[in-house]
Amino acid sequence: MRTVELKYAYRLLNHGPTVLVGSVHAGRSNVMAAAWAMPLDFDTPKIAVVVDKSTLTRELIDASGVLSLCVPTVAMKDLVMAAGSLSGKNCPDKLSRCKITTQAATQTGVPLVDGCIAQMECRVLPATAHVAGPHDLILAEVIGAWADERVFSEGRWHFENAAPELRSLHHVAGGHFYAIGETVPALPVAKA
Amino acid sequence: MRTVELKYAYRLLNHGPTVLVGSVHAGRSNVMAAAWAMPLDFDTPKIAVVVDKSTLTRELIDASGVLSLCVPTVAMKDLVMAAGSLSGKNCPDKLSRCKITTQAATQTGVPLVDGCIAQMECRVLPATAHVAGPHDLILAEVIGAWADERVFSEGRWHFENAAPELRSLHHVAGGHFYAIGETVPALPVAKA
Repeated sequence: MRTVELKYAYRLLNHGPTVLVGSVHAGRSNVMAAAWAMPLDFDTPKIAVVVDKSTLTRELIDASGVLSLCVPTVAMKDLVMAAGSLSGKNCPDKLSRCKITTQAATQTGVPLVDGCIAQMECRVLPATAHVAGPHDLILAEVIGAWADERVFSEGRWHFENAAPELRSLHHVAGGHFYAIGETVPALPVAKA
Repeated sequence: MRTVELKYAYRLLNHGPTVLVGSVHAGRSNVMAAAWAMPLDFDTPKIAVVVDKSTLTRELIDASGVLSLCVPTVAMKDLVMAAGSLSGKNCPDKLSRCKITTQAATQTGVPLVDGCIAQMECRVLPATAHVAGPHDLILAEVIGAWADERVFSEGRWHFENAAPELRSLHHVAGGHFYAIGETVPALPVAKA
């Protein structure tokens, strides 16, 4: 994993991948899957993610004010499915059952999931107070970002140059994902 | 285009496509491209989208309280690039220059873009008042949804059965997109 310049962090989510949301508070940590995440700003980078208030992840984020977002790969599809199906509330050994291993992020201690092609360490923003209640929406600033240099370099994804197992996952419904696909270059636009 | 049951509308955005945002107020309408959109709730369906306050689209949405989100295809890549590059403020004939044609949605009159594989008609939610200012974030309820039955049926996408030109676009950076790719089925998880 290589450090990503913070001004390029939004690009880790720009193409709409399913993510893993990591959380930690008072010695307890969790990881859940979420399809509803997106960039919210460029520089300083911010993200938005929906985390249901019934989840352990939400309890931990509400208590700690920090979270991680990681971008899992095709190779991790069964792990992602398990992380989206089991609840950390009912299943205290969720991480080991899901075969998830993590490293603590340096600034906040949030768990960064091994094997992911992107990892972000985030701090909850004040405006979350207005939207977390009615809409389960968490807004956060990205304070650290890393990506796998085999697929992300010079500030952008290059999936076309790497193994298919390193592509991001995009959840459709009920445990069916699509991998991100082929490159589609568009024509530049004359502004005049 | 076939009507999508509202309880499945979230699935139109679940896999993270780049969208076209449509707006109309007092006879003026616009369409812009946006990569930062996601579902916000299932049923009733809601969405979140980032629309910069410098844009004409934002002015029209703020004035009307309604918007559309449409999912464009690989075949529309140059249209999407143009819609994301030209501003309706500087360019009064933006839609014709971008080769965008639209139909007015029945309930709100918002423009639904021809050629898209999904179209949603949306009404801005009250909580937007707290996040549109600081974070350019628009929260909206989906009140009508349609999809192209060649790629969306029985409540989910089936890109694998259709022409590659009908796949959704996922913006990376600077006019480079990926198409959505191959199906990745995951193993079901035993909850016990």
